[in-house]
Amino acid sequence: MWGGRFSEAPDAVMEAINASISFDQRLAAQDIAGSRAHAAMLAAVGILSDRDAEAIREGLLTVLSEIETGQARFSAALEDIHMNVEARLTELIGEPAKRLHTARSRNDQVATDFRLWVRERCDEAEGLLVTLLRACLAQAEAGADWVMPGFTHLQTAQPVTWGHHMMAYVEMFARDLSRLRDARARMNECPLGAAALAGTGFPVDREMTARELGFDRPMANSLDAVSDRDFALEFLSVATISAMHLSRLAEELVIWSSAQFRFVRLSDRWSTGSSIMPQKRNPDAAELLRAKIGRILGANVALLTVMKGLPLAYSKDMQEDKEQVFDASDSWLLSLRAMAGMVADMTAERETLRAAAASGFSTATDLADWLVRELGLPFREAHHVTGALVAMAEARGCELAELSLGEMRGVHGGITEGVFGVLTVEASVASRRSYGGTAPERVREQVARWREVLG
Amino acid sequence: MWGGRFSEAPDAVMEAINASISFDQRLAAQDIAGSRAHAAMLAAVGILSDRDAEAIREGLLTVLSEIETGQARFSAALEDIHMNVEARLTELIGEPAKRLHTARSRNDQVATDFRLWVRERCDEAEGLLVTLLRACLAQAEAGADWVMPGFTHLQTAQPVTWGHHMMAYVEMFARDLSRLRDARARMNECPLGAAALAGTGFPVDREMTARELGFDRPMANSLDAVSDRDFALEFLSVATISAMHLSRLAEELVIWSSAQFRFVRLSDRWSTGSSIMPQKRNPDAAELLRAKIGRILGANVALLTVMKGLPLAYSKDMQEDKEQVFDASDSWLLSLRAMAGMVADMTAERETLRAAAASGFSTATDLADWLVRELGLPFREAHHVTGALVAMAEARGCELAELSLGEMRGVHGGITEGVFGVLTVEASVASRRSYGGTAPERVREQVARWREVLG
Amino acid sequence: MWGGRFSEAPDAVMEAINASISFDQRLAAQDIAGSRAHAAMLAAVGILSDRDAEAIREGLLTVLSEIETGQARFSAALEDIHMNVEARLTELIGEPAKRLHTARSRNDQVATDFRLWVRERCDEAEGLLVTLLRACLAQAEAGADWVMPGFTHLQTAQPVTWGHHMMAYVEMFARDLSRLRDARARMNECPLGAAALAGTGFPVDREMTARELGFDRPMANSLDAVSDRDFALEFLSVATISAMHLSRLAEELVIWSSAQFRFVRLSDRWSTGSSIMPQKRNPDAAELLRAKIGRILGANVALLTVMKGLPLAYSKDMQEDKEQVFDASDSWLLSLRAMAGMVADMTAERETLRAAAASGFSTATDLADWLVRELGLPFREAHHVTGALVAMAEARGCELAELSLGEMRGVHGGITEGVFGVLTVEASVASRRSYGGTAPERVREQVARWREVLG
Amino acid sequence: MWGGRFSEAPDAVMEAINASISFDQRLAAQDIAGSRAHAAMLAAVGILSDRDAEAIREGLLTVLSEIETGQARFSAALEDIHMNVEARLTELIGEPAKRLHTARSRNDQVATDFRLWVRERCDEAEGLLVTLLRACLAQAEAGADWVMPGFTHLQTAQPVTWGHHMMAYVEMFARDLSRLRDARARMNECPLGAAALAGTGFPVDREMTARELGFDRPMANSLDAVSDRDFALEFLSVATISAMHLSRLAEELVIWSSAQFRFVRLSDRWSTGSSIMPQKRNPDAAELLRAKIGRILGANVALLTVMKGLPLAYSKDMQEDKEQVFDASDSWLLSLRAMAGMVADMTAERETLRAAAASGFSTATDLADWLVRELGLPFREAHHVTGALVAMAEARGCELAELSLGEMRGVHGGITEGVFGVLTVEASVASRRSYGGTAPERVREQVARWREVLG
Repeated sequence: MWGGRFSEAPDAVMEAINASISFDQRLAAQDIAGSRAHAAMLAAVGILSDRDAEAIREGLLTVLSEIETGQARFSAALEDIHMNVEARLTELIGEPAKRLHTARSRNDQVATDFRLWVRERCDEAEGLLVTLLRACLAQAEAGADWVMPGFTHLQTAQPVTWGHHMMAYVEMFARDLSRLRDARARMNECPLGAAALAGTGFPVDREMTARELGFDRPMANSLDAVSDRDFALEFLSVATISAMHLSRLAEELVIWSSAQFRFVRLSDRWSTGSSIMPQKRNPDAAELLRAKIGRILGANVALLTVMKGLPLAYSKDMQEDKEQVFDASDSWLLSLRAMAGMVADMTAERETLRAAAASGFSTATDLADWLVRELGLPFREAHHVTGALVAMAEARGCELAELSLGEMRGVHGGITEGVFGVLTVEASVASRRSYGGTAPERVREQVARWREVLG
Repeated sequence: MWGGRFSEAPDAVMEAINASISFDQRLAAQDIAGSRAHAAMLAAVGILSDRDAEAIREGLLTVLSEIETGQARFSAALEDIHMNVEARLTELIGEPAKRLHTARSRNDQVATDFRLWVRERCDEAEGLLVTLLRACLAQAEAGADWVMPGFTHLQTAQPVTWGHHMMAYVEMFARDLSRLRDARARMNECPLGAAALAGTGFPVDREMTARELGFDRPMANSLDAVSDRDFALEFLSVATISAMHLSRLAEELVIWSSAQFRFVRLSDRWSTGSSIMPQKRNPDAAELLRAKIGRILGANVALLTVMKGLPLAYSKDMQEDKEQVFDASDSWLLSLRAMAGMVADMTAERETLRAAAASGFSTATDLADWLVRELGLPFREAHHVTGALVAMAEARGCELAELSLGEMRGVHGGITEGVFGVLTVEASVASRRSYGGTAPERVREQVARWREVLG
Repeated sequence: MWGGRFSEAPDAVMEAINASISFDQRLAAQDIAGSRAHAAMLAAVGILSDRDAEAIREGLLTVLSEIETGQARFSAALEDIHMNVEARLTELIGEPAKRLHTARSRNDQVATDFRLWVRERCDEAEGLLVTLLRACLAQAEAGADWVMPGFTHLQTAQPVTWGHHMMAYVEMFARDLSRLRDARARMNECPLGAAALAGTGFPVDREMTARELGFDRPMANSLDAVSDRDFALEFLSVATISAMHLSRLAEELVIWSSAQFRFVRLSDRWSTGSSIMPQKRNPDAAELLRAKIGRILGANVALLTVMKGLPLAYSKDMQEDKEQVFDASDSWLLSLRAMAGMVADMTAERETLRAAAASGFSTATDLADWLVRELGLPFREAHHVTGALVAMAEARGCELAELSLGEMRGVHGGITEGVFGVLTVEASVASRRSYGGTAPERVREQVARWREVLG
Repeated sequence: MWGGRFSEAPDAVMEAINASISFDQRLAAQDIAGSRAHAAMLAAVGILSDRDAEAIREGLLTVLSEIETGQARFSAALEDIHMNVEARLTELIGEPAKRLHTARSRNDQVATDFRLWVRERCDEAEGLLVTLLRACLAQAEAGADWVMPGFTHLQTAQPVTWGHHMMAYVEMFARDLSRLRDARARMNECPLGAAALAGTGFPVDREMTARELGFDRPMANSLDAVSDRDFALEFLSVATISAMHLSRLAEELVIWSSAQFRFVRLSDRWSTGSSIMPQKRNPDAAELLRAKIGRILGANVALLTVMKGLPLAYSKDMQEDKEQVFDASDSWLLSLRAMAGMVADMTAERETLRAAAASGFSTATDLADWLVRELGLPFREAHHVTGALVAMAEARGCELAELSLGEMRGVHGGITEGVFGVLTVEASVASRRSYGGTAPERVREQVARWREVLG
C-alpha cells in the first residue's frame, strides 16, 4: 500500500494498534458520499473522463449497498475505511478506481468524512432536543399552577410551581440547542481538496465539492483543514454541557422517586426491578442519565489531551478522535431520547408536592416582604423580625400561619391581620409576578412563548 | 447575619471552608455596579425613595473607591463580597443601606456579578485574540513565499510556505474568536430580579436593570437564573479549545528553537537562561504556553464535575465556580498576551527552512502528480512508480532531482525531461494554487481577506 | 542571573508568566532545609570549608525566620524561591553564599523541595484521616443496632444498621489511608545531587543529604530525578479518590438533612442560614465537601495534561505542578477536617430511621429467604412468590407483616405462622450475621477490630 | 425477571440504555468462576445438595465452553451476563440452576466478577511492564557509554549517555510496576457474600469462596463491598500515570525520528507509509502511544465523575464502570506491548548522537565546575566567567574547546591548559560519577541492579 521503502511487514501488535477499520467503518456512508462528490468534480474539471467518473460513482453505490446489507468484508491490513472502500471499488470496476485518489489524500478525506458524520449527529441531536423541550413544555403546561417546594441546598426555600420548575429545564435545554446550532454552523466548511496538507496542483473546484456535500464553503487553509479537530471538540463541549443538564434533572428524578419524597412516579417503562428484592422499583434510567456526563466529559478530556501540543499538520494521534466522538455521541443521543421518554411518561404527585411546599416555613420570605411593603421596614430588619417569628413557630411546632396575631405582635407590634393573606403557598406563588417569576400566569406566558419559538 | 434559628457559631474550619471573600472580592466592581442599577430601579418603581437611592448609589461609589485604593478591610465573618460591601455601605450611610436588599437575594446578585465579570473577560479576550491574529498575519505576509517543510507525523511531507503555516493559526485563532463571540452573546442576559429562586412579589422592572448593566434582556426563568452556570462553562470550553491551539503553536516553537531544527529564533525578551548552565537559552515562555491547556482544562473539568447532578436551584457547591474561572481566565488571557508578543518578536530562519524543505524527497508527490497529469497514469500506479524512484534515490544517497533521466526511465520509460520542472521546492509550492493551498499568491489573498475582516 | 548571552531584558508579560515566586514561596521552609543539608554535606566531603558551611547554615536560619515572621521581601525579578533565598543569604553573609550552589542546580533543588512539601502533606493527611476514621467509629459504635433503610438506587432495599452504614465509610477512608501510605513510601527518595540533569563531577555524598532530609535513599537516575512528577500525581490520585468518598458521604448528608428525609441533624456549627429566607438551615459544609472532588480532580487532570508528551529532562511546563498540588492539597486537607468535624457533631434521628426502614416492604428478601430455607423453594421461585405477596400488600396498602396468614397461603400454600418471625426489621438485621453483614454483633466486631488497628 | 409489581414492559430506549450484556459478556469467565465457587460453598455449608452443586458446576463449564467457542446467544432482554448465564444454565440442567442465586445478589456477583477481571489485567500488565523494562535495559546496556545530548527545555544542556537516558525510563516503568502491585494487593478482597447490600442470613462461608477465587480475604463490610469501585479507580490511576510515561518516551521517539534529529531509526515493523507521499516513513506507533494517555485519562475522569456524589449502596450509575475500564485496560496493555516492541527494535544512531552532544557548548558546566574546583571560584562567579567564554565562542562561531588558552585568559587570568581536559563530551560524562549520575560505570551498575531485581 505504501510502496517501495519498506522491507518488513508491520508487527502484529503494530497492526492492532494502527488499523482503524474496526471503528471507522461507521464512516462508510460519509466516505462514499465524499468520494462520489470528488469523482463528479474531477470529471467536471477534466481530470477524469465522464465515463470513469460515472463508473466510480455507480461502483461506490454498489459498495455502499454491500456495506449497508452486511455483505462487505473489511480487512485490517487495508487499515481504514478509505482503503477498504477503494479496494472493493477496484475489484468491482478495475482501473478507473485507481484514478479516484487523484488530487486528494486520506488526510482531507477523513477530515471530510468525520465532519459530515458529526454534522449529521448535530441534526439528529437538534431533533431530539426539540422533542425533549416539548415534553418539558407539556409537563409545565399541565402543572402551571401546581405548588411544590422550591429548594436551595435541598432545603425548602420558597414555594414554586411545577410548571416553573419544568420551564427552568426548558431554558437549559434551549441553550443547549442554541449552542449546538452555533457549533454546526461553524463546522460546516469543507476540507476536501486540502489534499495531504498543502493543497494540490490539480485544477480542482473546491466550491463544487463543498456545495454537493452541503457545506457552506471550502476551508480556507489546507494545513488547518487536515489538522483541525475543533469541530469535534466543540461538539463534545456542547454535548458535555447538555449532559450536565441531564444529570441535574436525572438527580432530581432519583431523589423525587424515593419513598421519602414521592414527588414523582416514573412509569414502569422507565423503571426496573431487582433479581433478589421483589419489592424494588428502581429509577435505573434516571441513574444512567445521571452517569452519562462522566462518559461524555471523559471523551472531551480524552480528545483535548490527545490534541495538546500536536505540531502541524496531521499526526497519527488524531486517529483517536473518532472512537471518543462516536461513544460520546451515542451516549448523548440515547440520553436525550431516554430523558424525553421519561419526562413525557412521568406523573407528578400533585398533593404530595403541595403538602411539602406548605411545610418548613416556606413563606417566611413573603412575611419579610410584607413587613417591608406594609410597615416600611428596611429589609434587613424585616429579615430579623421574620427570623424571630420562625424561631417561635419552630419552638411551638407549628407553621407560621398557625401563630396567632397576638404572638406575632409580641415580636413586632405593627403586624396586622393582613399578614395572614401572604402566608399561604398559593398566595406566595401568585404574588411572584415579576418577569421570570413562578406565578402561574408567568409560567403560562413562557410556555406560550416557547411553543411559538419551536414552531 | 442569618437570624434567630442558630444557637452556635460556626466552627472555625466551617468558616474557613465556607467564606468566599478571599476570592470573590474580585467581583467588587461588578457587585457595586449591580447594586447601583438595582437601587436606581427600586427608586424608579417607587420601592425606594429617590433620596435613599441616591444615598446608596453615592455610598457605593465611595465603597468602590475604598476597595480600588486598597483601603477596604474585608471580613471573613461577613462571608462574601456582597455582605462586605453592604456592611461597609451601612457604616457609611446608615439606614438606607438596609433597604437595598429589597427584592433581591445573594443568589441573583452573585449570578449577576459573576456574569458581568465573565462578560468583561470575553471583551478582553476578544481584543487579545485580534492582537494575536495581527501578529500572525504580519509573519504570514512577510514570509508568504518562504519555503519550509510541511510536516505530517513530524516527517517532511511536502514543501509549504511560512506564510501558509502562519495562516493555519490565523484560521484556528479566528475560530476561537468566533466561538467567544457566540458565548458572549448567549450569556448576555440578566439574572437580577430572580431573587432567591422564585422571582419577587415587588413590582420590579427587570428590563431596566438589564439595560443599565448592558444586558440584552432579563433571564426568563428565575430558577434557571440563580442556578445556571452554563455561561461560565461555555467560557471555559472556549478557553480550553483556544489553549489547545496555543499549545500546538507553542510545541512547534519549542521544537523549532532546538539546535537540531533552528527554524526560528525567539527573542531575548521571551527566553531565559540557566542558573547552572551558562550557555542555555531556553524557550520558557513557549513551554509555559504549552502547559496552560492543562490548567484551563483542569478548571473546565472541575466546574463540570461540581455541577454534575446538582438539583435545582442554588446549592453551595456552586461557590466553587469562581476560583476555577478566575484562574482559567487569568491563564488564558496571559497566554494570549504572551503568544502575541512571542510571535511578533520571533525570527524565522529563512535559509534553514528552505534547506530543510529541499531534503527528504519532499517533492515526491509532485512527481507522482506529474506522472498522472503528463503520462495519464492512474494515481495508484504513479504512487508506485514514485516509490521506486524514491527508493533508488535513497539508495544512492541523493535527492530526486539528482537522479538522471536515464535512471528515471529505467523505472518508467515514459518519463521525460519535463519532470525536472516539478522537482524544486519553489515549483512545488507555486503549483499548489487550489483554494486554500500553499502557493504564495493564495497566502497573500488570505492575508488580505483577513485584514479586511479584522478591519 | 543567567550571564552573558542575553542582550535584552524579559518582556513584562514574560516576567509575569515566568516568575514562580508568587506561589513557590510556600516551599521556603523546605528549600532552606534542603540547602542546609546540602551545605553540611559539601563541608563533610571537603568542597566547602566548615566555616563557610556554618555561615551558610546559620544564615539560612535567619532567612527562614525572616520569612516566617513576614519580614521577607520577595522579588519577581529573582524568579523563584531558590534565587530569592540565595540572594537574601548573600546579602546577609556575603561570599560563602555564592559557594552554596556548587554541585547542584535549581532542577534538583526544586524537585527536592517539592517532594519534601508533598511528603509533609501526606503526614498531615494521615493524621486527619485517622481523626475522621475515629469520628465514624464513634458514630458506628453508638448506633450499632439502630435500624435504618439500606438503599440501592435510593429505594429502600433491606434494613441495615446505622453502625454498619458508618462502617462502610470506615472501610473507604481506611483504603484512602492505605493508598496514602503506599504513595508516601514510594516518593520518599531524594533527588538532591542529580544536579541539572546528569549528576555531578563533584564528590558529593548523596546518602548523607538523603538521610538528613529523612529520605529512605537517593534517587537512582539523575535524569529521572529532575523530571519525575509521579510523586505529585500519585498524591493527587490518592486525594481524588478520597475526595470521591467524601463526596458520597456529603451527598448523603445533604439528602438526609432534607425535610423529606430528616435522617440526621447537622449541628449549627456546620450549617448556615440565608440572607433572605429567615427559616433556612443549610448544609453548606456538606455541599462544599461534595464539590471539592471537582477541584481536586481538576488539578489531577491539569498536571497529567501538563506532563503528557514532555521529553526529558526538565521542561518549564513542569512549573505548573505546584499550584495544582497546593490547591488540591489545601482542599483535601480542609475537607478531611470539615468532614471529621461534621461527622463528630451530627445526630442521627433514630426514630425516623427506624420508621423509614420499616416501610416499603424492606423485608421482602427475608421472606424470600424464608421460603428457600423453610420450604425448600429454589430461590428464583421464592422470589416470584414474594413478588406476588408484595403486589398484594401494595394493593391493600399495607406492609407485608400486615397480611394475614390466610392471604399469604392463597399465594403459596406452604407458608406457616413462622414466617412472621422474619418480617420485622429487627429480626432482619439480626439475621444478617454473615461476615461483613449488618447484624449489630458483626458491626461491633468491626468497630473493635478497627480500634485495634488504629491503636 | 423482576416479578409482580410491573405492568408495562420497558421502553425500547430503556432497554437500549439499560442492558449491559453487549459489554459485560467480557466477564463471562469470571462470572462462571464466581458461580462455581459459590455453588461449591453452598454445598459445603449444606444449603445445596452435593448433587445439585455438582450439576451446577458441570453445567457452568458447559456454558463457558459454549461462550468461548462462540456458540452462545446472548439476550438483551436478560439484561446482563449474570442472567444470561443463569438462563442458559437453567436450560441445560433445570431446577438446580434456580437454587444457585441463593444467598447472593447480582450486586455482589458483579462486584466479584469485575474485581477478578481487573486483577487478571493487573497480572497481565505486570508481565508486560517487565518485558518493557527488559527492552529498556537491553538498550541501556548496549549504549552505556554512547554519548548524546542531555536536554532541558529541548535545548542541549549537558552530555549524557544513551544508557543513562534509557535507565531513566526504567525507573519510571518500575514505579508503574510498584504502583500496580500495591493496587493489586489492595483490591484482592472478595465481595461475594455481601448479597444485595446487607449480607445474608444464610450460613455462608465467605472465607471459602474468597480462597477458591484466589482472594486474600472477604471484604469486611457488605455495603462497601457492593458499592466500592476504588479498585477500578486505582487501576485507572496507575494506568494513567503509566500512559503519561509512555507518552513522554513516545514524544521523544517522534522527535528523534525526524529528519532534523535522526537520533533513532524505528524499524519497518513499527513504521507506516503514506497513500499519497511515497517517500514517507512515519512513526505512527509512537504517535498512537503518545495519544493513548488521552483515552486512559478520559476513562479515569469518566469513572470518577460517575462515582461523584453517589449515595450508598449500589446505584445503576455504577454500570458505567465496565466499559471505561475495559477500554482503558485494552489501550494500556496494547500500548505496553507496542512500546516494548518498538524499544526492542529501534536503533540509536550513535554517531549522530555524539555529534549533537559535542555542539552547543554542552560542556559549559564542566568548565564552570573546573573553575570552582581548580581555581576556588565561588560557583556564582564561575558561572559568570563561563557565560563570558560562551559568548566569546558564539561570536567566533566555534565551540569552547576551540578557544585558545590566550583567549580564555583574557576572560579569567587563572585559567590553565588543564581546562581543556574537561571540555570533551567523553570527559564530561565520565566525570559525572555521583550516585545516579550519567557516567558509564554508574549506568552499568544500575543495569546490573535492575537485572537482579527483575530476576
